[in-house]
Amino acid sequence: MPGSAGASAVSELPTRLEVEDLQQSLDEVQEILAQLRPQDERGAAREPEELLLAKVRAKLDRLHPADIAVVLETLPRDERLVVWNLVKAERDGEILLELSDAVRESLIASMEPGELLAAAETLEADEIADLLPDLPEDVAQDVIRALPQEERERLRAALSYEEGTVGALMDFDQVTVREDVTLEAVTRYLRRLDELPGHTDQLFVLDRERRLRGIVPLARLIVSDLELEVSQVMSQESLQLHPEDGAEDAAQAFERYDLVSAPVVDHFGRLIGRLTVNSVVDHIREKSAQTQLAESGLQEEEDVFAPVWNSFRNRWAWLALNLVTAFIASRVIGAFEGSIEKLVALAALMPIVAGIGGNSGNQTITMIVRALALGQIQSEYWRRLLRKELGVAMLNGVAWGTLLGAVAYALYGNVSLGGVMALAMLLNLLLAAGMGVAIPYFRVRLGRDPAVGASVLITACTDSGGFFIFLGLATLFLL
Amino acid sequence: MPGSAGASAVSELPTRLEVEDLQQSLDEVQEILAQLRPQDERGAAREPEELLLAKVRAKLDRLHPADIAVVLETLPRDERLVVWNLVKAERDGEILLELSDAVRESLIASMEPGELLAAAETLEADEIADLLPDLPEDVAQDVIRALPQEERERLRAALSYEEGTVGALMDFDQVTVREDVTLEAVTRYLRRLDELPGHTDQLFVLDRERRLRGIVPLARLIVSDLELEVSQVMSQESLQLHPEDGAEDAAQAFERYDLVSAPVVDHFGRLIGRLTVNSVVDHIREKSAQTQLAESGLQEEEDVFAPVWNSFRNRWAWLALNLVTAFIASRVIGAFEGSIEKLVALAALMPIVAGIGGNSGNQTITMIVRALALGQIQSEYWRRLLRKELGVAMLNGVAWGTLLGAVAYALYGNVSLGGVMALAMLLNLLLAAGMGVAIPYFRVRLGRDPAVGASVLITACTDSGGFFIFLGLATLFLL
Repeated sequence: MPGSAGASAVSELPTRLEVEDLQQSLDEVQEILAQLRPQDERGAAREPEELLLAKVRAKLDRLHPADIAVVLETLPRDERLVVWNLVKAERDGEILLELSDAVRESLIASMEPGELLAAAETLEADEIADLLPDLPEDVAQDVIRALPQEERERLRAALSYEEGTVGALMDFDQVTVREDVTLEAVTRYLRRLDELPGHTDQLFVLDRERRLRGIVPLARLIVSDLELEVSQVMSQESLQLHPEDGAEDAAQAFERYDLVSAPVVDHFGRLIGRLTVNSVVDHIREKSAQTQLAESGLQEEEDVFAPVWNSFRNRWAWLALNLVTAFIASRVIGAFEGSIEKLVALAALMPIVAGIGGNSGNQTITMIVRALALGQIQSEYWRRLLRKELGVAMLNGVAWGTLLGAVAYALYGNVSLGGVMALAMLLNLLLAAGMGVAIPYFRVRLGRDPAVGASVLITACTDSGGFFIFLGLATLFLL
Repeated sequence: MPGSAGASAVSELPTRLEVEDLQQSLDEVQEILAQLRPQDERGAAREPEELLLAKVRAKLDRLHPADIAVVLETLPRDERLVVWNLVKAERDGEILLELSDAVRESLIASMEPGELLAAAETLEADEIADLLPDLPEDVAQDVIRALPQEERERLRAALSYEEGTVGALMDFDQVTVREDVTLEAVTRYLRRLDELPGHTDQLFVLDRERRLRGIVPLARLIVSDLELEVSQVMSQESLQLHPEDGAEDAAQAFERYDLVSAPVVDHFGRLIGRLTVNSVVDHIREKSAQTQLAESGLQEEEDVFAPVWNSFRNRWAWLALNLVTAFIASRVIGAFEGSIEKLVALAALMPIVAGIGGNSGNQTITMIVRALALGQIQSEYWRRLLRKELGVAMLNGVAWGTLLGAVAYALYGNVSLGGVMALAMLLNLLLAAGMGVAIPYFRVRLGRDPAVGASVLITACTDSGGFFIFLGLATLFLL
């Protein structure tokens, strides 16, 4: 091993990009921006503003559009606009595509119609389709009008598919060949293209009616004899997607079969586009972000530096919903005010029963919703699943119920109170398990997404249910 | 458009795989298995067991290993073992790789050491590294011993990197070339390989010390003149990863730069492996699953059909933790029992104050934890963030506080009670916002993962805090 020799040779290595580089670029931009801020107290000498801005501009010019997007996302609104105005106009389009919706909106709002039109013109049809909903109506019309005929039709196609379908994620950058030509001819054709579109790992073989006959992986093209015809080397078996297929199904197929790209065909088998793994990755990330945000009650990805009012709008609906369920729980307690007045210990103990039920129910429902998303629960196994969850709840109920019964007895020296506590725990955990299975079961039967609102529903059941069970038992046995 | 002509030609199209096909295969396997079950009451005539099993086997032989994994995950344990024994032994290894940990363990437990060894021998070093921790100690030793020298070293390398690093995800299937040969020679070399490894979108150019000099995208190899030398067409600028880089950083780089593969080099710039987009996709999925499970208190992915005892073990720690926080909240209430005894309405109203605080705090902390994961919060902006969150809380507090104050007044006809309710709401929402910013801030400062336990911590604060604020104010002003 040429240890030291190797080390000394590091500087001769080609320009490399490493994962830390982005953080470093970010820090450098931040540092220059910090110098731009009015420095009220310390009147430190600083470089003239133009020089500083020129420095930021030079840094930005060397960054990948996706990295500029990260820089923009990390800046508060005023500084974001300063940086945005330093970006070369011809890169605006690419960068807007990489931004989260909230930040994208804030930048679009700052741009003139002419600038927006110019930015859109640098993009391809499938990319414009992503951007169009965020553009002002008149600019959107101008963008569509400015497109050449073929692109306009593609744009129309891309816009016609709903979010969450393959059609909304596909692009039109496929490379196609005929089956009766030689690989030699294919190679000559590809050379004329000069550069292949990103993620071209296979060529699509079409007949005269544009129907997909097969695929030729680039890797096979390279290792095959150039005198062979396309029909001799193409694969006929491949995954074919339809534009109305669910994006999530397609993503699972990409994951299972380790795909880089897949053809998208219509119902006559005609090729209309392709789906690539980078769109799939974006989809997976976005989907997982949405789940995470929805679970804690944010309607959409929030710009961290959004004005207070925007944040309020993004969050109020969930709080209102929870207020309703909390109000119902409060009325359940209200019905037992007489009992609480007689035995005030109930007020202190009741949140424990409700809380543990909520946690346990959330565990059950999360596991089931995940298993459903992965297609792991076939219709004949629900009964078995319910039995298992009730079993776990029984075990939990006996364990924690006994413990808490003992604690309640220790605190208040009242054996019956301990018994009621233990029994209420057990019953509320059984309720949580039952509802944790029943809620997703019925949502699936009704054709709804079992994930939506799962946590609110189960918590509402276990809160109100927990208070009712505990206070009800106490009223029956203790008073 | 040859509409009807196209439709009639559909049947002539090549064998296609569509996304619905998996569900159909699943249903077919399920159907045959259903016939295998003892049919106690209805003694319907059925085919002999061997014939049914042969049918399942024939179906399985036509499925992709990843699809067989899905079939296995959807079956209860007894039927899962029946199906597993029908799978051809030489496919065992690939299938085990595709399974979730819990299901994989259940199958490994059913296999003989000899079978396990045979299964492992069908895999490559990086795949064995994934499987090894689940194998019995003596089998693992045998597997390592049976490997050829080079593979054993790769295995050792793969095992030496921690989970969550690039080293743990990389494979060793890179295709490498020298820079001083012609593309003609490269093409001849590739043809001898017969088949290129999956996800080969670029060749890595090495010098004599195995240091990475550049990369040649396959797409460029195809469109270039074969008389050129590698050095004339290679790119020197490319993303280079180190095995100890974080998998999450690498995944973000793949996403941003739309990569299919990237070289992994050591600190002397020597190539040791490569990372491919399919490993990145798997990582992203797994990470998002973990987050989702952790948030609702499941320690790991659960086999839906796991025995009750296994599920209990997977869930108890979280319940115990929540029990502690619920107990603390209960003691806060206990301290005010005197007040509740005098004004029992407090018991009914207090969960509303605590609950809304918890929800609002979870919104804040989720947004911040996500923004931190995306690198959107630079250190100088925490103060600004806190101001914003306090602003949102103020708005929420005034809106919901007023509403709930009015409701409390309407219910109990007590103006002061309404006032206390409104004020307590406002204060608890401010507390939630403050802690929602402070908890991730301090966890980042201490070098901890801000996501872990975020929800428990904030809920603990807003529960105990909410009870304390509301009951405290009531004691001060109402009694």
